[in-house]
Amino acid sequence: MIPKDHPRYASLVKREKIAESAWDGVVAMEGVGSHGRGEAFDYLIGEKTIESALLAEKTAAALFLDASFPVISVNGNTAVLAAAEIAELQKATGAVVEVNLFHRTEERIVKITKILEDAGVSVLSGRAEKLLDLSHDRALCLREGIYKSDVILVPLEDGDRCEALVNMGKKVITIDLNPLSRTAQTATLTITDELTRALPNITAACRDLGDEEQKLLIENLNNKEILKGAIEAIQENLSNAMD
Amino acid sequence: MIPKDHPRYASLVKREKIAESAWDGVVAMEGVGSHGRGEAFDYLIGEKTIESALLAEKTAAALFLDASFPVISVNGNTAVLAAAEIAELQKATGAVVEVNLFHRTEERIVKITKILEDAGVSVLSGRAEKLLDLSHDRALCLREGIYKSDVILVPLEDGDRCEALVNMGKKVITIDLNPLSRTAQTATLTITDELTRALPNITAACRDLGDEEQKLLIENLNNKEILKGAIEAIQENLSNAMD
Repeated sequence: MIPKDHPRYASLVKREKIAESAWDGVVAMEGVGSHGRGEAFDYLIGEKTIESALLAEKTAAALFLDASFPVISVNGNTAVLAAAEIAELQKATGAVVEVNLFHRTEERIVKITKILEDAGVSVLSGRAEKLLDLSHDRALCLREGIYKSDVILVPLEDGDRCEALVNMGKKVITIDLNPLSRTAQTATLTITDELTRALPNITAACRDLGDEEQKLLIENLNNKEILKGAIEAIQENLSNAMD
Repeated sequence: MIPKDHPRYASLVKREKIAESAWDGVVAMEGVGSHGRGEAFDYLIGEKTIESALLAEKTAAALFLDASFPVISVNGNTAVLAAAEIAELQKATGAVVEVNLFHRTEERIVKITKILEDAGVSVLSGRAEKLLDLSHDRALCLREGIYKSDVILVPLEDGDRCEALVNMGKKVITIDLNPLSRTAQTATLTITDELTRALPNITAACRDLGDEEQKLLIENLNNKEILKGAIEAIQENLSNAMD
C-alpha cells in the first residue's frame, strides 16, 4: 500500500495500476517499460502542466472543434490510466473512439473496450483492415474510424504509426512526455504532459474556447516552438537541481 | 525480432530481456518500469559513458581495491542484464556477491542465484536477518555479506536502502542513470551510466590502477561534482536537440 501522504502518491498509484494491468493482460509488457520512460520525463518537467503544454492543449481543443471527423485512438496504457477522462473528452468533442493497439490481440481489444465502456465511452466496433502504410498488424485500423479521421488524437503512440498517419494528410495530435521522441517530433501537435493532466485540459478548452481564439490558435500552431518550450522547462529544472 | 542493424539494437535487446524475465518471475513487475525510467535517462546522456561516469567508475575501482570486505549486492534486473559482467568484477575484486531484493521472495532469490551461478558468479548463501534500519523485508540481508561490508556496490538500488547503508558507515557505490534520484544523491559515489557499460569499466580499472592513482582517486572523490557532470551532459544533449 502506498501511503496517501507520499509526495509522489499520484505517480506511484499510476505505476501500480499499470503493473497490475500487465498481469491482467490489458497492458502489454512493453507498455510497462514505456510508462517508466514517461515517468522519467514527467519527473524532469516537474510533474506539472508546463506553459507550452497548456498552449498545446488549447490548440488541440481548437483542432478538435474545427474537425470534420475527429477520432481518439486508445491503447492499453491510455485505457487503464484515463478511461474516465476519455469519456469526458468524447462528450466535449463528439469524437469517435477506436481501440488501436501496437501489440494487437483480439483478447486485449475486448478487455480494453470493456474498460472504456464501463467508464461511459462509446467505442467504435467493426472489422479492422490493413489501411495504414505499415507492415503486419500495425497497419490495422477501422475504415469508419482512424482511416476516415481528419483530426486524430493518438496518446502514447509509436513513432512509425504517428508518421504513417501524418503522411495520410491527417492532423495528428499526440500526448508524449518525451519531447525528443520520434512521435513528438513527427506529430502535427505534441502535448508534453502527463495523460491525466492533459486530457481534462483539452476537454475544458473545448468547452471554453471562443471562435476567434480557436482560429488564432490554429493559425499560430508551431509545434517546433511548443517542443522547444518543453525542452527549456527540463533544462531549467536540471539547472535548479544543481543549486 | 529486433533487426541487428537497428540504431538502438543494444537498448531494445535489453528491453526485451527485462520483459521476458518479468514473465519468468525473475524481474519484479516494478523492475520493468524502473528499466524504462533508466532507458529514458540513458537516452538523455547519449547512451554512452560520459566523462564524469568514467571518473566515477575508476574511483569505484579504487574503493574496491582499498576495501577490507567488499560486497556486490545483486537484484533481478542486474542479474538479467549483467550476470557475466558481475562474474568478471567479482574475479577482479574478490568481492562477496549477495542476492538482495526489494520485492523479496524465496522463489526469486533461488532463480536469480541460479542465473548468477550459471554465469560463473560465486553467490553467498545463508539465512537473511533483519539487520538494516528499514521496515519489513527490506531490512533483510546476510550477516556475512552486506551487513559486514565496508565498501558495497548496489546497482539500481532504492533510495531508502541506499540511505540506510550509508548511515551504517559503509562506502556505498551505486549505478543509477538518474543523477537526480535519491539513491544518486545519497550514495558515497554515483555512477551515472548503463549497467553493462559501467561494470566492465570498473573491472578494467581494478586491473589497471596504480597505487598512486588509486590513492588520488579516493582523496579527490567529490560525488556532487560527479553528479554535476552528468546533469551538464544531459543539458548539452538537450541543447543540441533544439538546433
